[in-house]
Amino acid sequence: MPAILLCRRPEASFSAALRERFRVLDFLASGEPLPAFLAAAPAAPEPPRAAVVTGGCSVRVDAWFLDAAPSIRCVVSTGAGVDHIDLAECARRGVAVANSGDVYSTDVADYAVGLLLDVLRQLSAAGRYVRRGSWAVQGDYPLGCKLGGKRVGIIGLGNIGSRVAKRLEAFGCVIQYNSRKPKDSVPYKYFPNVHDLAVESDMLIVACALNKETRHIVNKNVLEALGKSGVIVNIGRGSNIDEEELVLALKEGKIAGAGLDVFEHEPKVPAELFSMDNVVLSRHIAVFTKESRSDLHAHTIGNLEAFFSGQPLLSPVQADSVVQ
Amino acid sequence: MPAILLCRRPEASFSAALRERFRVLDFLASGEPLPAFLAAAPAAPEPPRAAVVTGGCSVRVDAWFLDAAPSIRCVVSTGAGVDHIDLAECARRGVAVANSGDVYSTDVADYAVGLLLDVLRQLSAAGRYVRRGSWAVQGDYPLGCKLGGKRVGIIGLGNIGSRVAKRLEAFGCVIQYNSRKPKDSVPYKYFPNVHDLAVESDMLIVACALNKETRHIVNKNVLEALGKSGVIVNIGRGSNIDEEELVLALKEGKIAGAGLDVFEHEPKVPAELFSMDNVVLSRHIAVFTKESRSDLHAHTIGNLEAFFSGQPLLSPVQADSVVQ
Repeated sequence: MPAILLCRRPEASFSAALRERFRVLDFLASGEPLPAFLAAAPAAPEPPRAAVVTGGCSVRVDAWFLDAAPSIRCVVSTGAGVDHIDLAECARRGVAVANSGDVYSTDVADYAVGLLLDVLRQLSAAGRYVRRGSWAVQGDYPLGCKLGGKRVGIIGLGNIGSRVAKRLEAFGCVIQYNSRKPKDSVPYKYFPNVHDLAVESDMLIVACALNKETRHIVNKNVLEALGKSGVIVNIGRGSNIDEEELVLALKEGKIAGAGLDVFEHEPKVPAELFSMDNVVLSRHIAVFTKESRSDLHAHTIGNLEAFFSGQPLLSPVQADSVVQ
Repeated sequence: MPAILLCRRPEASFSAALRERFRVLDFLASGEPLPAFLAAAPAAPEPPRAAVVTGGCSVRVDAWFLDAAPSIRCVVSTGAGVDHIDLAECARRGVAVANSGDVYSTDVADYAVGLLLDVLRQLSAAGRYVRRGSWAVQGDYPLGCKLGGKRVGIIGLGNIGSRVAKRLEAFGCVIQYNSRKPKDSVPYKYFPNVHDLAVESDMLIVACALNKETRHIVNKNVLEALGKSGVIVNIGRGSNIDEEELVLALKEGKIAGAGLDVFEHEPKVPAELFSMDNVVLSRHIAVFTKESRSDLHAHTIGNLEAFFSGQPLLSPVQADSVVQ
């Protein structure tokens, strides 16, 4: 069986499935530094040539990691985002990278629409109102806003963003987007910069990958351009938005509301947001459903098997393909 | 100006718009019984020939009402549902009836999808978890369920149900429905009875009008047919579901969850539901957004003006057209 370096904690069923097919070197379970762990790992019949990693975990795949584990020729991330992998360094060394591909895309897109509807129609906030028993005592709760006909600006029109667009088209929204370059395959209006997109949008949905170019792509200026009745949804990465400025904009009523699945310092959520009824808070869960988890396991194993049999990876990631 | 009998409390702007066009006899503001109010109302130059009514209000348009106000020839409801109007009695007396037509349909359909996503993906429940600060302390919240690929059974494929279908198609759901009779214009599978629809569905969405045939259309048998992993959303009327049986089914885990905008005894919500995290509670607000309210005002005035000028009503309701 080929050896793999496991750099995440898998659920029991995933772990069992991996062990059926691979000799699993479980780095996190070892508690050792990587060089010591690899030195102690039984190298026979061969050292690990592939690593399974994930985002939000202590292991970053960078020059240091690749120096410490020079046998690794393929890195498979179990996340869609690959901001924990230095793609340029991998490319320079000829290390192949795969991510979770399209496994999560529909669930994330669904979730983005759910967050947007929740902010606009106040499902969570008014639900808390009903649960407190206030409906019968205090009467009606303030009205929410219509989704239909609104202009939705999507930042990043990749696997996820394009599915968000498809869904919101069915709600009668006007779709427009920002990405590195315009896409010929879609009929939506393209904006080369996020500020201009925000000026012309009622809502922004952040659906891009996180990298140098997209860190704080939503900053103070963009929030001001979105304006007082604007709503923002983030199912990308927390650091796609300047969180401090976002909290300030919400506090000062410079935007109308937000639906946030991700935060800059997870699992820490800015405490100011807890008391805001125009903000829907979620815990980086857009990708996960009971169903997607088992799809992911199959997909990860598929990528590993492709690598070890010399076939093309199912969902390769190129160094220049991460801004969608 | 023609006289109208106003049997609901309008917001100030709606009231002003009505008074610009009509002599408004404000029945509810009077505090008097209807016969006494009408007897005291200035009849000159003519008694009111149209009435504006709404659901969930104390005024029912039935034989007694029509006897007390024999000058009324047209009843305009500001709701989509007309279960507060005895349509057969109106038809027998030649009294025209109009409802809110399509004004609310998109907002209600949006809301139905919002409730469904909320139940499946636990937006409200997990949001409360995050707000309590539990994410950072207790770690992950249990996973929700995928929407894509699920079989959605829609009860009532009228203005609202068909819009729910269109939206959920974009999420990759398999749409099927029950209504009085099959509709040639749609590609969805038709079920002549709700029990069989429930057997073959992962989720049920109640989007029908309330009348004798649809009262408790979702009963104990239907809930059992939907089954342990089934989810139900109600944006119709509370009494479309046998609420007592629904609460029992949720308590005993006979279905997986529910999203409820309406209840049998509003604004009373069964207290058992308050502690259930698999239930999303809402306060009969699916129809209302800031935008829909002003659309409704214009539409109601349009119906009244059509009646008084002898034109066809914008959204007439026939006695036999209410089961969708």
